[in-house]
Amino acid sequence: MRAAVMRNREIVVDTVPDPVPGPGQVLVKTLACGICGSDLHALRHADHLADTAERSGVSGVMDPSADVVMGHEFCAEIVEHGPDAAKTLAVGTRVCSMPFLIGATGLSLIGYSNDVPGGYGELMVLNEGMLLEVPDDMSTEVAALTEPMAVGAHAVAKARLGPEDLPLVIGCGPVGLAIIASLKRAGAAPVIAADFSPMRRALAEKFGADIVVDPAEQSPYETWSSAGVPEGFDPLMALMGAGPKMKPAVIFECVGVPGILQQVFEGAPKDTRIVVAGVCMEQDRIEPFFAINKELNVQFVLGYQPDEFTETLADIANGKLCAEPMITGKIDLDGVPAAFDDLASPERHAKVIVEPWR
Amino acid sequence: MRAAVMRNREIVVDTVPDPVPGPGQVLVKTLACGICGSDLHALRHADHLADTAERSGVSGVMDPSADVVMGHEFCAEIVEHGPDAAKTLAVGTRVCSMPFLIGATGLSLIGYSNDVPGGYGELMVLNEGMLLEVPDDMSTEVAALTEPMAVGAHAVAKARLGPEDLPLVIGCGPVGLAIIASLKRAGAAPVIAADFSPMRRALAEKFGADIVVDPAEQSPYETWSSAGVPEGFDPLMALMGAGPKMKPAVIFECVGVPGILQQVFEGAPKDTRIVVAGVCMEQDRIEPFFAINKELNVQFVLGYQPDEFTETLADIANGKLCAEPMITGKIDLDGVPAAFDDLASPERHAKVIVEPWR
Repeated sequence: MRAAVMRNREIVVDTVPDPVPGPGQVLVKTLACGICGSDLHALRHADHLADTAERSGVSGVMDPSADVVMGHEFCAEIVEHGPDAAKTLAVGTRVCSMPFLIGATGLSLIGYSNDVPGGYGELMVLNEGMLLEVPDDMSTEVAALTEPMAVGAHAVAKARLGPEDLPLVIGCGPVGLAIIASLKRAGAAPVIAADFSPMRRALAEKFGADIVVDPAEQSPYETWSSAGVPEGFDPLMALMGAGPKMKPAVIFECVGVPGILQQVFEGAPKDTRIVVAGVCMEQDRIEPFFAINKELNVQFVLGYQPDEFTETLADIANGKLCAEPMITGKIDLDGVPAAFDDLASPERHAKVIVEPWR
Repeated sequence: MRAAVMRNREIVVDTVPDPVPGPGQVLVKTLACGICGSDLHALRHADHLADTAERSGVSGVMDPSADVVMGHEFCAEIVEHGPDAAKTLAVGTRVCSMPFLIGATGLSLIGYSNDVPGGYGELMVLNEGMLLEVPDDMSTEVAALTEPMAVGAHAVAKARLGPEDLPLVIGCGPVGLAIIASLKRAGAAPVIAADFSPMRRALAEKFGADIVVDPAEQSPYETWSSAGVPEGFDPLMALMGAGPKMKPAVIFECVGVPGILQQVFEGAPKDTRIVVAGVCMEQDRIEPFFAINKELNVQFVLGYQPDEFTETLADIANGKLCAEPMITGKIDLDGVPAAFDDLASPERHAKVIVEPWR
């Protein structure tokens, strides 16, 4: 099959062996696959990622010196059932799946494995038991957004939102947008979102953010603190446990670069819950005393639960979750190398969809 | 009055002006005052502490170039009522108080202020409304432990313990011991505690720790992970959300030096809640991906709520909270400079009590 392959720290388009479905697996053709920021990072910092993942207990990490077909945000079509398949879904059915493959050798991360190709290739194998049928009236490219949208749903679930909580989303790339959508689904208001990029701020509004801030113009923390002050609030009284309390603050960190966590520590008011949804793969520096003095809570998050993934597909389909405006471009396999360059600029794209059969 | 004074980065014993009670305040004589690890840190890193505290939003921070009488863990006796005092408690009553003074100029931290002397002096002023009477059958030195014990009670409260939670206490200095006591009060079992110091491990046992680990001999994380594995546990099943789950893990970090947080990130299993009770005043380095990959939750804590302070005094008195074994030495004011040196060694002391009138 043809595939965009990570090889020698580059993306090249080449022909690679077709994957073969094992027992209980299906062969699918990839209809659409989103490019994830983590893939850009994996390309740039392949060795470091492999090292960090292994040290942090991720098993079966890819060897960056061998070929990898990345891509884990996909919608696909069943082509063939493997041995012992129950054939619950017929050939031709459009499906989504969490990007995990359980096989004879254990669990593989689809898109970060030397053995299991991801969605930047024409064909994949998936576990039959993990397939979710895509509703007929849902477009293929929007179905491919299920994975990144589930990341947002999970981050919001881990935030344990209360009815008074006032959320601030720092960074409006795909993760930030998915979080805004899930916050709106949960009924949070007002949702405040911040990004330096005009295009991303416009997308944040489309996704339902109530107040959108350019950090170059005004502090997102101040915008949000002033929205959280109740009538009659007295800081000294509050310190002694009396009088009206500030609304509980929840910051979603969706940037994932060194320094951003300390910046949030400095900007956040007392008792803020911080959900770290940005994936910083590098070493970072913090001053713990800022977090100690404010009694901050930091919830690091990654991925989603199976039920969150299933519910995300359903809620995109029934309109409870805004997703479609995230797509800013569609390309074929030959366009993948250039798209990796384009995505480095927040003004050009949010989510680029690869259509290998285009 | 006589006092042990922080002056030019040293502790010197000298005569300083007597404090004068304002409206609603009382003059007290300090009967006993514990030396806190934060005071040792404040002496060594006075400038850095003042700078960090100010940048992190603490107001009214002490000027380290002027005199400070430290000491915030005290039991005192009422000597005189200031103007407009309600005189609810008579002269001669033994009292405790949270170490805050609210006066005409706002809130001062008793023991970290240039204007308000702390418990390393013969006299202090306190707000009448914040006084707690010490029960007759409670010793003065044990009453002085109310403050550090309340720190432990607050840390455990912030951990939101569930019935299945398996706690691990890293570091068995006074903060760690206070946390062990509060964990036992909450009914947590088994409580696992780790410290390199044999004396501190012996104290941890006195405070009720069920399993005590020397990290030089065995990994506290492994000890505790093996205690948390339920029958029939399958990591792959658990990843997919099925089968028995690991017991929820709660790590109390009570060391507070750079590097310990990353060490906990590396040792902790997935979904661990980490309560940071150690006060690290320096810059620290972390690798966020370890925390992201394991979806760790980090709750930074400081101090206590007024009700926690009140309840701590009551529960030490009624025997629900073990406190007394923490005291490893009692000194007079002239002994304070040497005690600051002694406390740097974990083998010599846990809590040293200063008795200014001794």
